[in-house]
Amino acid sequence: MEGILLTVAYDGTGYRGFQFQASSPSVQGAIEECLSIVQKRFTRVKGASRTDAGVHARGQRVFFTSPMEIPDQGYLRGLNALLPPDVAVVGVKRVAPSFNPRRTVGKLYEYTVRNSTIPDPLASRYQWEVYRPLDLSAMEQAAQYILGTHDFTSFQAADCERENAVRTVTRVEFLPHGEVVRIRVAGNAFLKYMVRIMVGTLIEVGRGRFTPEKVRDIIAARDRRLAGPTAPARGLCLVRVVYEGEQKEELYPNFEECP
Amino acid sequence: MEGILLTVAYDGTGYRGFQFQASSPSVQGAIEECLSIVQKRFTRVKGASRTDAGVHARGQRVFFTSPMEIPDQGYLRGLNALLPPDVAVVGVKRVAPSFNPRRTVGKLYEYTVRNSTIPDPLASRYQWEVYRPLDLSAMEQAAQYILGTHDFTSFQAADCERENAVRTVTRVEFLPHGEVVRIRVAGNAFLKYMVRIMVGTLIEVGRGRFTPEKVRDIIAARDRRLAGPTAPARGLCLVRVVYEGEQKEELYPNFEECP
Repeated sequence: MEGILLTVAYDGTGYRGFQFQASSPSVQGAIEECLSIVQKRFTRVKGASRTDAGVHARGQRVFFTSPMEIPDQGYLRGLNALLPPDVAVVGVKRVAPSFNPRRTVGKLYEYTVRNSTIPDPLASRYQWEVYRPLDLSAMEQAAQYILGTHDFTSFQAADCERENAVRTVTRVEFLPHGEVVRIRVAGNAFLKYMVRIMVGTLIEVGRGRFTPEKVRDIIAARDRRLAGPTAPARGLCLVRVVYEGEQKEELYPNFEECP
Repeated sequence: MEGILLTVAYDGTGYRGFQFQASSPSVQGAIEECLSIVQKRFTRVKGASRTDAGVHARGQRVFFTSPMEIPDQGYLRGLNALLPPDVAVVGVKRVAPSFNPRRTVGKLYEYTVRNSTIPDPLASRYQWEVYRPLDLSAMEQAAQYILGTHDFTSFQAADCERENAVRTVTRVEFLPHGEVVRIRVAGNAFLKYMVRIMVGTLIEVGRGRFTPEKVRDIIAARDRRLAGPTAPARGLCLVRVVYEGEQKEELYPNFEECP
């Protein structure tokens, strides 16, 4: 038995999220369907991250075990020949059959905001259009209160309260390029909707509706109702997932390195 | 009566082309539907270019006449509020009511090729995946035979032979960036499928199936059957259309200027 860890990219627009659902299209379901053909038996997979409906990925990680000896190229070519154009395997790694794909060291997300009164139809699947001008330096100030280890109950989906909402955010960075602002967020682990609520809150700061300092107070209050709205799923992309023994620097690439 | 010339961007994936069709979605139909609401009467529009089914645009031009006095912002905001997310008005210009939008001075197209064995699902709507390695310098050599004024019958859809297939191509340029190659083609006017057949032929050169010199012979023969296949619509984007009195330099932007 071999453990296989795929790196998977997808356009999440057409899926009800990564996680398998019996009656709706899921990325996991699409991968399992194709993998079961390649392996000639039903194969269950497990993802590093249960991305929400509509969220994209460039670097989701997907684990499964296999009794067959199939080379990396076999998985790459075989799966990519079968998968629909909105899902692709972009990397293959061998791991122990006991590997736990949920036990990550860090994750890097990117959220894309288009700050313009004029929409871009060739990018509308991948960005949130914010029409009012944003004060980026206020947003950068606010981001300082997010960095570090905090109880992030305020940035957690109201319907999903975990007992322990303490997480560590190691990076919040902004890259403005023309009318587009990419927001990079890295951390050890994330709560449900955490990045999207964080972005929704930072946008409130950028629009001048919250002061940067209010973000500190929102986090301290541990109350979801005080934070900003949940930013739309389409702007979010899971860029990288890092495991024990892998380069942690992968979480802090230069912006230029990523498309 | 006023003449209005819009600049329009669209993701062509969901449309059977720009031109209105009674039973299929068209970009023209989508614009007319929304414009007729804004103008409170049915309004027919005319495009600079009848882009094919699945072809995208950043700079299509669309003309109509109006008896109402609506400011530029009214067209921009009013139409963009009504249009679906895959079509947007990005510019407005006043012209004479007798303006002929088909009488262009030049057009700039961009064709995007992904030259890799690994697909990119977040860009698959906008590029042609070519798995075998391409010899770019052979393609650049071949492009020299395309530049200039020729009878382009060989690069014209077989089902649509125009009496006069003489056209002038003023630019064929390649920008490789990582695994993606963007091919820019500018000219005074184009035949049906001309850019796509040109790209399909250049890819045959890049793959080593045609010598660069063969492209000269293909053009001289005026025979569509000798050229390469028609490249898929999804890789093509109409970037700019220039009219008399507008900056002709618009046809030769730095690659960096365009997204």
